Amino acid sequence: MQALRVDVALGERGYAIHIGSGLLAGAGLILEQLDLPRAAIVTNATVAPLYLRQLEQALHAQGVEVMSVVLEDGERYKDWVTLNRIYDALLEHRCDRRTTLIALGGGVVGDLTGFAAATYMRGVPFIQIPTTLLAQVDSSIGGKTGINHPLGKNMIGAFYQPRLVLADTDVLKSLPAREFSAGMAEVIKHGLVRDAAFFSWLEQNMEQLLAGDPQALAHAVRRCCEIKAAVVVEDERETGVRALLNFGHTFGHAIESGLGYGNWLHGEAVAAGMVMAADLSRRMGLIADVDLMRIITLLEHAGLPTAPPEISPDRLLDLMGTDKKAEGGRLRFVLLDAIGRASVRADVPAAPLRQALAFSRTA
Amino acid sequence: MQALRVDVALGERGYAIHIGSGLLAGAGLILEQLDLPRAAIVTNATVAPLYLRQLEQALHAQGVEVMSVVLEDGERYKDWVTLNRIYDALLEHRCDRRTTLIALGGGVVGDLTGFAAATYMRGVPFIQIPTTLLAQVDSSIGGKTGINHPLGKNMIGAFYQPRLVLADTDVLKSLPAREFSAGMAEVIKHGLVRDAAFFSWLEQNMEQLLAGDPQALAHAVRRCCEIKAAVVVEDERETGVRALLNFGHTFGHAIESGLGYGNWLHGEAVAAGMVMAADLSRRMGLIADVDLMRIITLLEHAGLPTAPPEISPDRLLDLMGTDKKAEGGRLRFVLLDAIGRASVRADVPAAPLRQALAFSRTA
Repeated sequence: MQALRVDVALGERGYAIHIGSGLLAGAGLILEQLDLPRAAIVTNATVAPLYLRQLEQALHAQGVEVMSVVLEDGERYKDWVTLNRIYDALLEHRCDRRTTLIALGGGVVGDLTGFAAATYMRGVPFIQIPTTLLAQVDSSIGGKTGINHPLGKNMIGAFYQPRLVLADTDVLKSLPAREFSAGMAEVIKHGLVRDAAFFSWLEQNMEQLLAGDPQALAHAVRRCCEIKAAVVVEDERETGVRALLNFGHTFGHAIESGLGYGNWLHGEAVAAGMVMAADLSRRMGLIADVDLMRIITLLEHAGLPTAPPEISPDRLLDLMGTDKKAEGGRLRFVLLDAIGRASVRADVPAAPLRQALAFSRTA
Repeated sequence: MQALRVDVALGERGYAIHIGSGLLAGAGLILEQLDLPRAAIVTNATVAPLYLRQLEQALHAQGVEVMSVVLEDGERYKDWVTLNRIYDALLEHRCDRRTTLIALGGGVVGDLTGFAAATYMRGVPFIQIPTTLLAQVDSSIGGKTGINHPLGKNMIGAFYQPRLVLADTDVLKSLPAREFSAGMAEVIKHGLVRDAAFFSWLEQNMEQLLAGDPQALAHAVRRCCEIKAAVVVEDERETGVRALLNFGHTFGHAIESGLGYGNWLHGEAVAAGMVMAADLSRRMGLIADVDLMRIITLLEHAGLPTAPPEISPDRLLDLMGTDKKAEGGRLRFVLLDAIGRASVRADVPAAPLRQALAFSRTA
C-alpha cells in the first residue's frame, strides 16, 4: 500500500499529512523538517514501550540527537502540572529555539506537546506523530493545542500548526477496541458535518474498519484529513466554518466535565453529544426521524454510547455555560441541516434544548 | 501637549501606540477596539489604588461591562501560579472569546496579561496600558508575552500583539525614582543600539528627564516607540534584527536569575549587563575606551548600577547557558560596533568574555 499525502495549504504555516504503513520506521520525512539535528520526543507510558525505541533509533540513524519525555497516560494529565514536566525536561536538557518537539501519541500527547511547542521560548518547531485513530483523523491536524482547566476543557491553549503530520496506520493495530471506537466517533462526525457520501460509505464499511482492514482504514483516515484540512484552510482560527467540526462537542464537553475528565473517553462523550445534537436538530425540524435513527445505528455499530450518563439537564446546561464556544453569553449550537451538512445556530429555544438533554435517557 | 501616535505596521496584526497626557481618563480609543462592550482589567496591588477606579469609571461611562483582577506586585509573581489566577478569574466570570483583556501596569502585568490573552480560549483581544517608563518604551510594544520559569526568565511565552497601546505620560509622575531609573536603562538601550543622535540627546537632557519634564519625557517615549516599532515590523518573531534589542539582556538575565528574580529590577540588571556587553565590545576592538566611558557615565547619571552584584564569572556563564538566545548550544552576544549600532556575534572568544564578566567589579 502506497503512502497517501494530504496538504494543509496554510501558506507559510502550511504542511503535509502523510498517511500509510511503516512511516514510523523511516525518519527521512522528519529530517527534512528539522532546523538542527536535535529533537525532543514527548510520549506517554502506554505508547513508549510500543513505539518510542523504534522512533528514537530511526532518528539516531539519521544523526539526530534525541531526548524523550514520557508522561502519564490519560486525559486527566492534560493539565499544568504535566505541561510543566515538559518545560522542565526541555530546560534541563538546555533545548533551544531550534529544537523540534515531536508528539508521539494520541490527542492528549498531541495537545500538550503542541502547546508546549507554542509556548516554549515563545515557539519552537513541532511535528505530530498521532498513534490513535482519533488523533490521526482529527486532533493532530489544524493546530489546536492546549490543556484543560478545572472549570472547562481546552480552556487554555493556542493555535499552533505542526510542520508535519505522520499518520502510520500500522500503529492502529495496537489500539484497544474502546479507543478505536472513540476515534470512530470523530470519523463519523466528519461525514455527518461535511460529506453525506462518506457517511454512507461508513455505514457500508464499518465492519471492515472494525476488523482493521488496511485499505478501508487508510481511506477513512485520508478522507477525514481531506475534510479537516479543507475546513482549517478556510478558517484557521475558528471564526466561522471550522466551528462546524465541533458538532456534538458542546454537549460532549459538558458530559466530560460533569463526569470528571477521563471517565469517558473524549470520543465516547462526543458520540453521546452528537446524538443529543442530532435529536435537537430533529426537534427543531431540521432533520427527519430516520436521519436520527441512521446516526444512532451507525454509532452503535461502531461500539459507541448513544446516551449520556446520569447527569441532570440543569447540570448539563450549567456546564455548557462555561464552554468556550459560548459567545457573548448566548449559547450557540452546531446543528444538522441534513446528514452531511451542518450550521451554527444561536436561536435554539429552551424547550427543545431541555427535551434533547433529557432525550437519550428516556428514549 | 498634543497626543502623539506611533503605528506598528504589522498588517492584520498592526496597531497604534498613543502617547500623551490624560489618555487614561478617556476610554474612546479603547472602545473602538472592543468586539463586545466587555473587558477584563488585569493590574497589581500597587497600581490599582492609583489608576484602576479611574479606568473602570471611564469604561463604565462608555457602557462597557468591566471586571478586574488585582495581582501581587513584583517580578517574582510572573509565574504559573499568578497566570492561573487570571485564568481562574476569567472562567469564574464566564468571560468568552470576545472579552478584551486590558493590562494596566508595568512589564510584569503586561507580560502576564498578554500571555493570558494569547492562551485563554486560544486567544482573546488584548490592550496594553503601560504605567511604568520601562513598559511604555519597551515591554508593552512588540507582542512579547510570557512568564518566568525557575530555570530561566521569560522561558514560557508567546508572540501576541495587542490591539492598542495607551502610554499616558501623566502616570510616570507616580513612579518611584528607582523604577523610573530602571526604565531609563531601556531608553538608553534604544539609543545605543539604533540611534547615536538620540543617545547624545539623552546625554544632554537626562536632567530634564529625571525632573519629569513632560515635553522631554514625551519625546523620549515617542522616539523609543518609533525605534522599537520599526524593529518589530522588520522582524516580528526575532529571527534577525530584533535580537539587537536584547543588548545587555543576556548578561542582565543571568544577573536576575543568579540573584533570584525581583532582587534587582529588570532595568537595573540590564544596565549592569549593558556595561558588561559594552566592555566586551571594547575588548574585542569594536568600540573605543571613550565610548565605554560615555555609556557608564550616562547610566550613572540616570541613577543605574554599572557593575554586577557578587556573582562569579563561572556562575554567570552557567546561567547564560540556559538563556533562550543561545542557539545550537553556542552563545551569541549582541555587541556594539559603535554607539548607535549593534550586531549579533557568535564568535566571542573565551578570554575577553571572562574578562568582561569580571570587569566591573575590578574597574
